[in-house]
Amino acid sequence: MTVDLNADAGESYGAFTYGQDEAVFPWVTSANLACGFHGGSPSRIREAVRLAKAYGVAVGAHPGFPDLVGFGRREMALSPEEVYADVLYQIGALYAFLRAEGLPLHHVKPHGALYLKACKDRETARAIALAVKAFDPGLPLVVLPGTVYEEEARKAGLRVVLEAFPERAYLRSGQLAPRSLPGSWITDPKEAARRAVRMVLEGKVEALDGGEVAVRAETLCIHGDNPNAPEVARVVREALEAQGVEVRAF
Amino acid sequence: MTVDLNADAGESYGAFTYGQDEAVFPWVTSANLACGFHGGSPSRIREAVRLAKAYGVAVGAHPGFPDLVGFGRREMALSPEEVYADVLYQIGALYAFLRAEGLPLHHVKPHGALYLKACKDRETARAIALAVKAFDPGLPLVVLPGTVYEEEARKAGLRVVLEAFPERAYLRSGQLAPRSLPGSWITDPKEAARRAVRMVLEGKVEALDGGEVAVRAETLCIHGDNPNAPEVARVVREALEAQGVEVRAF
Amino acid sequence: MTVDLNADAGESYGAFTYGQDEAVFPWVTSANLACGFHGGSPSRIREAVRLAKAYGVAVGAHPGFPDLVGFGRREMALSPEEVYADVLYQIGALYAFLRAEGLPLHHVKPHGALYLKACKDRETARAIALAVKAFDPGLPLVVLPGTVYEEEARKAGLRVVLEAFPERAYLRSGQLAPRSLPGSWITDPKEAARRAVRMVLEGKVEALDGGEVAVRAETLCIHGDNPNAPEVARVVREALEAQGVEVRAF
Amino acid sequence: MTVDLNADAGESYGAFTYGQDEAVFPWVTSANLACGFHGGSPSRIREAVRLAKAYGVAVGAHPGFPDLVGFGRREMALSPEEVYADVLYQIGALYAFLRAEGLPLHHVKPHGALYLKACKDRETARAIALAVKAFDPGLPLVVLPGTVYEEEARKAGLRVVLEAFPERAYLRSGQLAPRSLPGSWITDPKEAARRAVRMVLEGKVEALDGGEVAVRAETLCIHGDNPNAPEVARVVREALEAQGVEVRAF
Repeated sequence: MTVDLNADAGESYGAFTYGQDEAVFPWVTSANLACGFHGGSPSRIREAVRLAKAYGVAVGAHPGFPDLVGFGRREMALSPEEVYADVLYQIGALYAFLRAEGLPLHHVKPHGALYLKACKDRETARAIALAVKAFDPGLPLVVLPGTVYEEEARKAGLRVVLEAFPERAYLRSGQLAPRSLPGSWITDPKEAARRAVRMVLEGKVEALDGGEVAVRAETLCIHGDNPNAPEVARVVREALEAQGVEVRAF
Repeated sequence: MTVDLNADAGESYGAFTYGQDEAVFPWVTSANLACGFHGGSPSRIREAVRLAKAYGVAVGAHPGFPDLVGFGRREMALSPEEVYADVLYQIGALYAFLRAEGLPLHHVKPHGALYLKACKDRETARAIALAVKAFDPGLPLVVLPGTVYEEEARKAGLRVVLEAFPERAYLRSGQLAPRSLPGSWITDPKEAARRAVRMVLEGKVEALDGGEVAVRAETLCIHGDNPNAPEVARVVREALEAQGVEVRAF
Repeated sequence: MTVDLNADAGESYGAFTYGQDEAVFPWVTSANLACGFHGGSPSRIREAVRLAKAYGVAVGAHPGFPDLVGFGRREMALSPEEVYADVLYQIGALYAFLRAEGLPLHHVKPHGALYLKACKDRETARAIALAVKAFDPGLPLVVLPGTVYEEEARKAGLRVVLEAFPERAYLRSGQLAPRSLPGSWITDPKEAARRAVRMVLEGKVEALDGGEVAVRAETLCIHGDNPNAPEVARVVREALEAQGVEVRAF
Repeated sequence: MTVDLNADAGESYGAFTYGQDEAVFPWVTSANLACGFHGGSPSRIREAVRLAKAYGVAVGAHPGFPDLVGFGRREMALSPEEVYADVLYQIGALYAFLRAEGLPLHHVKPHGALYLKACKDRETARAIALAVKAFDPGLPLVVLPGTVYEEEARKAGLRVVLEAFPERAYLRSGQLAPRSLPGSWITDPKEAARRAVRMVLEGKVEALDGGEVAVRAETLCIHGDNPNAPEVARVVREALEAQGVEVRAF
């Protein structure tokens, strides 16, 4: 059994530092790097790429909505053409730093509200998939399983990588529990680790509204902007490896 | 004899239209496309790339200072590291649209105040050259001959393309005449065409302060944001071709 | 009978010119000036304020979503607190230029997608109204009649100014016809003028889906970014005055 | 004897937190709040204004260059007209939040590279002074004594407030020692406090290049973005009060 551990990174912007890339990178196997729209200024992207290189972390592009002040967390009514162009632009911008460092572009994962919109809006999902395909048809796209986003990524012929969230509660329906629900957020690193192990070894986890829910996971997301993100990443990784799971980039 | 005719393009930004790409593209052989910092939003970049493709115009990246409100025309005190990162980011962003359309990235030419700063500041010039080299050591860089910018581009081992300006007056020293000097700007298309022909066939032109000045020109810049830019481009091209000069991308 | 004619203006941004302020100002009595978020850089705002002063046009603030690349036309999922802060910020920014020129701030009218969202989302409407009230409880707010936006503006105790659109078709329900419907847009200046006169004198107009619809109008909006905006403004104004309607700022 | 203690604040931007406003505000008597250009998004400005209100800290505007990614620390070649418009815009934006909270606008102090450029470039200094005057001729302007900036502020008829820097070394010439010089930065809070007391009580301090230098100080700047800024502010304040100096806003 193998699984990837991913975290968002490279979100610092000029003098504004965000997240704890250096403390998280020893424990994750892939990183989604901001590309300048919701975070990630050129110099800080470069810094994050070099840090990822030093830690052997595989680097993906993390395109977001053009909303720096909202950190890409606010849904925007972009046309599919605008989504396509914004995603393509951001992939290229990040790619340049990887190319300069002799690293491959490992994957694409949309950020924040763009990711969430793709899960429910087919046109947005298709636009993202087509932008990835236009840049490189062999580039893997990280998706939430069971969504129109997964469907459109597959229709585009992309390699799809299924993502699960050990720090987030799931509903029986398979959906992530809304953050407004009590218990929707798992803050204890050991509990997150226990869930991560179940997801990978058993392909399921307890649902917040009772019973169990099937969870397909090729990559597990660690939320890099939590203050205890480095500890969560470490405890999850150690628990997986203690169970014989190989943690490595997909 | 051959020469390239280049013009800045792709500078529109969202709802804001700038320049006359469609009217200029029939006459030029290469275009420097804005990459988002001084102009050029993703959707408008895409539009310009597709238009260039339709007209068979070779597309280069036109990175500028991160100053949209100032259109990249105001010098900024960026560190060499910041210049390097900003240029690399912009090259990659434009490259993505070219790759999506199956077009090669033809060259790089810095925009506005960044170009002018490179001509006088060795560290800025070197940072630009190193960014180009890091992306692709075979990528040509357009330079103003006789400057530290040309020197640093050569030192980096890049293919250097020498640029001349038929619409700008030169001083005997070989420098462009400051815009504040009377006569520094040639607005008559026929006069610009006559100067273009002299530059290419004789390698020299009249100096504003008397006598003549040697001008080396592998590419001639047509200022795309003049209202009469399409006519200037057409008249210059027709004059060159009437003299047997082949006008084609370098 | 009196009515105000308003137009959006001051939307140019740095080197990017938008609209035709100078050609429209002779005919309108109030202008909604962009405040920097969807358009309107400081120097261009100043230019527009001075132009409005020269033409005796009353100046209101035209706050929009923080989306320059989308020109504020794309709905964004801002929290009410974010709407409040963004509107307050923009009002203050514009106010400074008016104060410097010795002009009063005449009104507030939200721009584009923010205006449309206020018409259907009560929390957004309330946030706008509270921001206006916090700045100046006597400041008039331009609203679309019959919406939750009008309701919230009244609840906040603001002076409400009812707006109608002679260039837009209405449905029997009183709503503006969606732009996707054939006939939703009136492009003939004379027809727009005829409708403007009916709106003001009779308080009604033909509905696109048959019959008539009541229209309350204290101010009529002329769409300043149409190429023929100056002519529409002139023809509408002349038709109103020919019918004895006094056209002046509310 | 009285003196003001000022610190930069309100520089957080959306999800990006910068500085330690809440820890510094108990010790300073005035704060220079970012206005959106180098930092300070509307919601974060509002938060800082309310925090200042809670602590009784007098609030001034801290306009900077339009360079968020560079945090306003990179000199830009703005025309005087652009400086005037940018400063006016930012003053108005901040003013709106103060007005909404029933607070007066206490002063203006330019930020970072704009402050430094004003000290050496007369046209920039004059543009700043004229923008402040245009908004409110009674608004105090914080200046570095002995510079063209002080001269232009006085020429404009503004109330000038002289600033000194207990954490920065001075040269005999009266200038601040360049940061590249060893010893130019005083990091020990007690040493900063000792210098602050000398500046206020004796009007002088030791020069880095030997001897003493006269220092006129109506306000002392505490650098709010140092990790130990809260401690520096506390120790400086306590030392001043222990010597009978009244620390209060000018």
